[in-house]
Amino acid sequence: MKAVGVIVEYNPFHNGHAFHLEAAREAAGAQIVIAAMSGNFLQRGEPALVSKWMRAKMALLGGADIVFELPYPFAVQQAETFANGAVSLLEAAGCSALCFGSEDGDIEAFKNTMHLFEKNQSLFDEKVKLHIKTGVSYPKALSLSFEDLQLQGNLVNLSKPNNILGFQYIQALHRQKSGMLPLTIKRKHADYHDEHFSSETIASATSIRKALFDSTDGQHSIRQFIPAQSAVLLEEYYRKYGLFHHWENYWQLLKYRLLQMTPDDLRSIYEMEEGLEHRFLKASLAAASFAEFMEQIKTKRYTWTRLQRACAHILTNARKEEMVVESKKVSYLRLLGMSGRGREYLNKMKTHYSLPLVSKLSSFQHHSISLDIRASRIYSCAISGSNQRDHIEMEFRQPPIFVP
Amino acid sequence: MKAVGVIVEYNPFHNGHAFHLEAAREAAGAQIVIAAMSGNFLQRGEPALVSKWMRAKMALLGGADIVFELPYPFAVQQAETFANGAVSLLEAAGCSALCFGSEDGDIEAFKNTMHLFEKNQSLFDEKVKLHIKTGVSYPKALSLSFEDLQLQGNLVNLSKPNNILGFQYIQALHRQKSGMLPLTIKRKHADYHDEHFSSETIASATSIRKALFDSTDGQHSIRQFIPAQSAVLLEEYYRKYGLFHHWENYWQLLKYRLLQMTPDDLRSIYEMEEGLEHRFLKASLAAASFAEFMEQIKTKRYTWTRLQRACAHILTNARKEEMVVESKKVSYLRLLGMSGRGREYLNKMKTHYSLPLVSKLSSFQHHSISLDIRASRIYSCAISGSNQRDHIEMEFRQPPIFVP
Repeated sequence: MKAVGVIVEYNPFHNGHAFHLEAAREAAGAQIVIAAMSGNFLQRGEPALVSKWMRAKMALLGGADIVFELPYPFAVQQAETFANGAVSLLEAAGCSALCFGSEDGDIEAFKNTMHLFEKNQSLFDEKVKLHIKTGVSYPKALSLSFEDLQLQGNLVNLSKPNNILGFQYIQALHRQKSGMLPLTIKRKHADYHDEHFSSETIASATSIRKALFDSTDGQHSIRQFIPAQSAVLLEEYYRKYGLFHHWENYWQLLKYRLLQMTPDDLRSIYEMEEGLEHRFLKASLAAASFAEFMEQIKTKRYTWTRLQRACAHILTNARKEEMVVESKKVSYLRLLGMSGRGREYLNKMKTHYSLPLVSKLSSFQHHSISLDIRASRIYSCAISGSNQRDHIEMEFRQPPIFVP
Repeated sequence: MKAVGVIVEYNPFHNGHAFHLEAAREAAGAQIVIAAMSGNFLQRGEPALVSKWMRAKMALLGGADIVFELPYPFAVQQAETFANGAVSLLEAAGCSALCFGSEDGDIEAFKNTMHLFEKNQSLFDEKVKLHIKTGVSYPKALSLSFEDLQLQGNLVNLSKPNNILGFQYIQALHRQKSGMLPLTIKRKHADYHDEHFSSETIASATSIRKALFDSTDGQHSIRQFIPAQSAVLLEEYYRKYGLFHHWENYWQLLKYRLLQMTPDDLRSIYEMEEGLEHRFLKASLAAASFAEFMEQIKTKRYTWTRLQRACAHILTNARKEEMVVESKKVSYLRLLGMSGRGREYLNKMKTHYSLPLVSKLSSFQHHSISLDIRASRIYSCAISGSNQRDHIEMEFRQPPIFVP
């Protein structure tokens, strides 16, 4: 059985994702699609709308065969580490190809860009350093340096967010000497950061989230953009738990924790660079909401996403030593869910896996999975009343979702 | 000007406290009454009903002349350290006498008991060790050992809570070779732990708190037991902040923090003894309220109060190294409020004080005051909405209360 891998967050799962799964299966000629999915906290340092279990179920109903959780130390990270983790996970899961969506949709352009990039690596690194010195953020310095090089040929446009992410995957495949074949699908319509609906069936996850949070009939207005079964699951979650998770739901906890921390405590947290700690502590005293807090801590030096990730790490108590991933590869495959075909595949593969397959938490111990567990429990703290305990306990009690 | 000291919590200030202040002044022949008062967290490991500022105001309106805050590392402590801190504070504040309420009301009985106790110290210590080995709590072992000694004479009854506390003060005076004259007033009517009203004007703070929390007309039903001005202040606080502080208001924060902590983190907290950490972590997953949590962690080995203090330390992040008070004496006098007479006294005394007089936080730094500040800010986290920030900022902005 041939498997193709995809790297996803599904926040929430929408029509574009369903299209991507189908196209990936076809492009790779695969029977099985395996998703490496972020857990309850996402790459941009945000809590996911709904729990990883719900998102795994949406993915399985939408065409995925297996969903593995990308561990927190890779998932809530800058793009390079995120890519390293996800690529290593899919490789370990036995995928023969990796398929990602991109604005350009031309895999040759990605490869060309990488080769040229490699040749000019030292020059590039120098330019990055110079740009950083002017006070711009690291991603901005990367993109400026890339422009400086003025490379010629069939190259990928690295000002587009999905191209950038795809390029990280290509580089990770190369670094890890992966045997997976890289494939890319041109994204339909919506740009990643679009806040408005611009097509009749395809919308970005960003615009869908915005509709869910901003309008009173949010759940209704997004129905055309997500599979019917995803809509049902979202409604079910909202009915049961009374919320779609949002940073504002964690603001009182983050604020309490910041008030409780000494500057030393703050410095022990991952991505808290020298000097940021006083900025964070001061803002925690004055801000009345998470949005206000972010406004007060933002600076040209760090991207919004980077600062938001630092907030996630404070909330989950993710310390520097816990977040170090020296091997740049995941150490286990945590199974969130599978289809009938997915189960067949897993049964065939399980003796071949180089990494432990974790389908029951109580039978496995690892310092990184401790962080996954902690992050999930803290994610549950946004839920009020008697459902909170169920939600907290789900981390241990929930068996992998099965969608026959 | 002669000053007498009292050691108090005023949770809340009631008629019995007003009587005590007047009697102390008279017994000592003093012009000035100085109160060493716990801050926002109390000796039994609970948040105070209302803030220390409000309680200081009640005290001043009720007859005190000066209120100093007993620092957190002494206030949220077992009786011996609490007594050491309070006695050293009053001594440093220039008191010539210390006056405490007790069930027996006979200072000679306290002195006799102490002398006999001293003579039998080593025998006593041995007995305590033996009792501890049987699995009883430390205070229980003390009281059993005391009975074992079968001392004869005019002795104080150490099965009564205020006698026990008073005996701690007597011992602290002795240990610190204090020049303060010990005085005791027989408490009127109410026993410390009484939960019911048994007199027409005097009720224990315990029964007053119970009425405030349990009945819908709580504020009305306690009016006969507290001075009119205290009642007005309590009402004012409730109207403005919407609550009387209670452990349940902090339960979500404590739970979040417990879910966030590693066993190592927990072990760094003061009073978290070996073995307790797993008990606490397990209970945090299952309990739906602070009351349930306490039920689940309680054990014969530790008193309820001791466990509740450990909860306060987790909530405020009070680490072992921060709570060590090697000198057994306070290092500063933090002024919460004063009367006109109190101000006169302070003006005369200020050049004589051996310790810094802190009336403005921004001009003073000390590791222990950092903990006071932190505890106060965390205390404010129970308040919701736009008043939270004001309450948090009060710690720095509020000048000492002045009641002319």
